[in-house]
Amino acid sequence: MLDALKAILGDPERVVTGSEIEEKFLTDTLGRLKGEADALVFPLTTEEVANVMKFAYAHDIPVTPRGAGTNLVGSTVPQKRGIILDVSKMNRILEVDEETFTAVVEPGVVLQDFQAHVESMGLFYPPDPGEKTATIGGNIATNAGGMRAVKYGVTRDYVRGLEVVLADGTVITSGSKNVKDASGLQLRQLFVGSEGTLCVITKCILRLVPKPESSLSVLVPYPSLESGVKSVHAIIKANAGPTAIEFIERSVVELGERYTGVIFPCPEAKAYILLTFDGVKEQVLQNIDRVRAVARNTGALDFITLTDPAQAADIWKVRGCFVKAVEAVSEQEPVDLVVPINQTAEYIAYVHQVEEETGMHMIAFGHAGDGNVHLCIIRGDRDEETWNRELSHVMHTLYKKAHELGGLTSGEHGVGIAKQPYFFRNADPALLNAMRLVKTALDPKHLLNDHISYLK
Amino acid sequence: MLDALKAILGDPERVVTGSEIEEKFLTDTLGRLKGEADALVFPLTTEEVANVMKFAYAHDIPVTPRGAGTNLVGSTVPQKRGIILDVSKMNRILEVDEETFTAVVEPGVVLQDFQAHVESMGLFYPPDPGEKTATIGGNIATNAGGMRAVKYGVTRDYVRGLEVVLADGTVITSGSKNVKDASGLQLRQLFVGSEGTLCVITKCILRLVPKPESSLSVLVPYPSLESGVKSVHAIIKANAGPTAIEFIERSVVELGERYTGVIFPCPEAKAYILLTFDGVKEQVLQNIDRVRAVARNTGALDFITLTDPAQAADIWKVRGCFVKAVEAVSEQEPVDLVVPINQTAEYIAYVHQVEEETGMHMIAFGHAGDGNVHLCIIRGDRDEETWNRELSHVMHTLYKKAHELGGLTSGEHGVGIAKQPYFFRNADPALLNAMRLVKTALDPKHLLNDHISYLK
Repeated sequence: MLDALKAILGDPERVVTGSEIEEKFLTDTLGRLKGEADALVFPLTTEEVANVMKFAYAHDIPVTPRGAGTNLVGSTVPQKRGIILDVSKMNRILEVDEETFTAVVEPGVVLQDFQAHVESMGLFYPPDPGEKTATIGGNIATNAGGMRAVKYGVTRDYVRGLEVVLADGTVITSGSKNVKDASGLQLRQLFVGSEGTLCVITKCILRLVPKPESSLSVLVPYPSLESGVKSVHAIIKANAGPTAIEFIERSVVELGERYTGVIFPCPEAKAYILLTFDGVKEQVLQNIDRVRAVARNTGALDFITLTDPAQAADIWKVRGCFVKAVEAVSEQEPVDLVVPINQTAEYIAYVHQVEEETGMHMIAFGHAGDGNVHLCIIRGDRDEETWNRELSHVMHTLYKKAHELGGLTSGEHGVGIAKQPYFFRNADPALLNAMRLVKTALDPKHLLNDHISYLK
Repeated sequence: MLDALKAILGDPERVVTGSEIEEKFLTDTLGRLKGEADALVFPLTTEEVANVMKFAYAHDIPVTPRGAGTNLVGSTVPQKRGIILDVSKMNRILEVDEETFTAVVEPGVVLQDFQAHVESMGLFYPPDPGEKTATIGGNIATNAGGMRAVKYGVTRDYVRGLEVVLADGTVITSGSKNVKDASGLQLRQLFVGSEGTLCVITKCILRLVPKPESSLSVLVPYPSLESGVKSVHAIIKANAGPTAIEFIERSVVELGERYTGVIFPCPEAKAYILLTFDGVKEQVLQNIDRVRAVARNTGALDFITLTDPAQAADIWKVRGCFVKAVEAVSEQEPVDLVVPINQTAEYIAYVHQVEEETGMHMIAFGHAGDGNVHLCIIRGDRDEETWNRELSHVMHTLYKKAHELGGLTSGEHGVGIAKQPYFFRNADPALLNAMRLVKTALDPKHLLNDHISYLK
């Protein structure tokens, strides 16, 4: 296998033997799940990817595509050996077309590099998941969301076209620079969010927008999480166009305060709603005024416009630190379930009830504007066996409630390996079967990320 | 077959024998292509649709789903006999959920009824294709676009979930009221725009937004189409958030003036850009001011804010009448190709060149904000044989140029039967094959709209 791969890539440096593969390529960003593989390859071109896939297809070799490997659910953990196909060296921004507000990039381009590049040209790529060192290809494979989704939507909404390599090595392009497309089945829409199970993404045609002229955040403390989250509906209804609407409980803020040394205002609050507005400056200010009125009517304790850039940076530093703050003291299990936006407060109340009943500490924060709840379930000093047993129980309990409220297993991270048991338990078998029919049609030998077994 | 269908529907009134089927059910809104069928059924429930499909599947009977039949490309023309499955009586708005900004509707709900209903509740369903008597199910099947797409996107962007019946009668629901979804393959994204070839839509979970508080249009006359269309890029770049950006040539306006009796201002113009802005009133006015500055810098002859509702209604009456104005004097072939937004002016110039070279008169107008060019190719007094021959030549010429410029066969109407030759000629065989694999996986007997033969 190795000789064949070296011949395909024409560069032995870009083919790594199984025993020499660094551990980070055998796992995800959490590093808990570990796999094994026979080879790790770094293609540089679509043709190389296609030839690797043709070889794998001819010899029934499983393939695990990966970009930066920042996923949280084990999607990039090779559980069936085979080839790890790492596209991180396919990292060129091929074109930024200002006239059509599009860009063409290779899948290994890192999100933060791409954002910075287009912003330097007066353009803007709105999808903004928390992990900025992820690749664009990975963002597309998980349909990454992030905070700006309230105003701008998610990664899917910025994918105009995809060049992909199918399991048998066939190269196809679905989509183009055109805005509208009613010309045949839109396969790229199926590829977005498919977690590497249907194809390897080799080129991305992305939609850009003009860069907003200004951006301003507002922190709104509330006497309870319920009153805070309830204000979200009124905020959305006020036609004030917020870019982001986050919620944070006071107890979680305190964790962030300890970790960062930053002190949040209004410590008597039980929860905060953190909003961002962007656009033309005068309109940003007008929109903030509208939301100020809503805050007053929904029982806010204060309304703090973060006009001081240092204060704004501090507040966002706290908002951005929770996972790291938890991980500084304990292992944690990340959850990114989603509920209908009117169920967020009830869901968080339930989380606290489960905490009390089980003694398992959790912190909750997330995207109030779209019901996307992030939980860190904290291991503390549990031994391995206790942790696995109690975690499994808590996770089943949490997902069950989410599904009862009309929610879903994942809003952003995907199903991967880690979330399969919870996804399975709550998915309609007929729907799963239809997904499998599509998987089998495009990957008849089930070679691509077949460890994501809901498609088996 | 008829007895079995009557037993399934339990109501003989809702099963029409082949020979008694009214002609309008055998064609599309243009009425040129005509098919034949053995039966026409009007199910009222998902279960009835599922049972009809199970029966059809067991007996290898082709099925042609339809809603209001307003399509323009022959999608609803049964070319293989079988059953016409008309969902227009499944027309209930099941729920409008103000708390989650969603609605659940049956597929036969008529667009304009649904828009009016949610607007009466202070909500808004942005997709706004020209044909307001189409059904929501039909809109989803073609991923209908319309004028508001510049700001709001197309139908796809408002489909949160779909309940569908597959070819074998299996009922699945893909999606929910949740905003974000990274929980498994997003099959509904494949169903949107699939023109009835993959499933019958039986329930639609739709996304709503708060109703904009005000709306105002602006008419900007230009000395040439080129200068007008060139201004579009600057308008988008100005961060003024227009809802719609339409272009109309002066010669087309004159046709509309004759048809409606309305007189457009600035008759010395060669083209007009017609914009709409919606949102909070003061911001609408601010945005219009920004665009006024752009218009000045791009050579506009005037800048007419349509604050007088009567004048605005007149202008939009003209914009809305072109197809009817043409059809009042001649048969016409509608084209809705799309090109990258920076190619619109070049494309229209080419259309005029083809007009000169061939003597075939065409009128062009459309959505300048997204490169969606509508053409009416006018038959005039050509006899049938001449018309068919010359039309075929002109169509091939026009689509060839669109594809050379990076464009697509259809932006809104779909491929159907009428646009297949042009779609085929310009589609990558590998892409078509991948589409067929997906079609065959979900409809192995090729029963659903199999006259849309690019999937054969």
